[in-house]
Amino acid sequence: MRKIFQADLEALGDQLVEISQLVSTAMERAYESFDEADLELAERVIADDARIDFLQLALDEKAIELLALQGPVATDLRTVVAALRMSSSLERMGDLARHISQLARLRYPENVAPASIAPTFKRMAQLCISMAQNVTALLESRELDLAKQIVKDNMELNELHSSVFAAIADPSWDADAPSTVDCTLASRYFERYGDHAVSVARKVSYLVTGEWESTLPGI
Amino acid sequence: MRKIFQADLEALGDQLVEISQLVSTAMERAYESFDEADLELAERVIADDARIDFLQLALDEKAIELLALQGPVATDLRTVVAALRMSSSLERMGDLARHISQLARLRYPENVAPASIAPTFKRMAQLCISMAQNVTALLESRELDLAKQIVKDNMELNELHSSVFAAIADPSWDADAPSTVDCTLASRYFERYGDHAVSVARKVSYLVTGEWESTLPGI
Repeated sequence: MRKIFQADLEALGDQLVEISQLVSTAMERAYESFDEADLELAERVIADDARIDFLQLALDEKAIELLALQGPVATDLRTVVAALRMSSSLERMGDLARHISQLARLRYPENVAPASIAPTFKRMAQLCISMAQNVTALLESRELDLAKQIVKDNMELNELHSSVFAAIADPSWDADAPSTVDCTLASRYFERYGDHAVSVARKVSYLVTGEWESTLPGI
Repeated sequence: MRKIFQADLEALGDQLVEISQLVSTAMERAYESFDEADLELAERVIADDARIDFLQLALDEKAIELLALQGPVATDLRTVVAALRMSSSLERMGDLARHISQLARLRYPENVAPASIAPTFKRMAQLCISMAQNVTALLESRELDLAKQIVKDNMELNELHSSVFAAIADPSWDADAPSTVDCTLASRYFERYGDHAVSVARKVSYLVTGEWESTLPGI
């Protein structure tokens, strides 16, 4: 019984890795559709999000089945509960990538972001993609340096999020009001994507160390 | 054993109700602080959110303990897993109420919203508060008409969310860019608060009927 359960836990981990990879790809494509006003790519990201939602439901069903059939306790139980929560964060990351593409679709053939702020969004997207890739690697390796990097990247992401609002408040900001709305939302979507990546990193960190607070300073 | 477990499940339900009440009060006060530029009240909402976070952690620990000690299956297992998820949605609703008050604090002594759009936010807040109160009643009674009302209110909330962006895009919109940012974020916070209320309503509905899709049309 014990051996089967470990295989099941590993399968759950593999499913998380699969979703995490899709979520990372979704953000890569979402940003490209946003930056290049690529309607076709935007539509693809929006359509592909259904696959992430489906995989999350499948993972959750698997986790509940594990709880029912195996009645895990202690660390194994916390691993299964953490998987349920991590799948929820990953699913939201997929939604947020989709939202970025929905902004691109809404403004097509225009660009969402004025040229003055495009480099900020480029860096935010790079950080989001890097964080998602590190989430995948962290889920695979449980190497906590990756969790620390995710937290560090999120700090930079939060600073950039604030800088978007500072840029909008600057007298030199000359975009129209709908464009201001879009930039506000895009910045918020990137920022929330990063928060969910940190949430996953915290949970892996907790499973590895058994400690909630001390291993990831600053969050 | 069976009897004790039912008492534990009920205790879990009572904890959800308690958090739901706090989340509803948080939105009432958050909106008041937002509408009246009341710094003291805003600070109170922001500080009180820690209590919601604490209660969520306590509920989650209790749920995990239940899973470990009682090894529930079938409906009881789904009830415990649903409680874990509902607590997460409720905690986010508390965060979103806090965000509304953070906007009020940021703009104090100014009002966040221009007078032209204040009535829209008033209605959005009324809907949010009503939805949260109905979530509390639904958790207590499992009366599915309440879930349907929550879904209905959310549809109106989504329409108002769209109308905020339409108002901002209208040539008559003359607020400055930072105010446009704040209105965008406030509208998004109300809208997300409603989404989480629907998410809780769906889970209660699922627990009552065993069916995920059919009972709550339109979501």
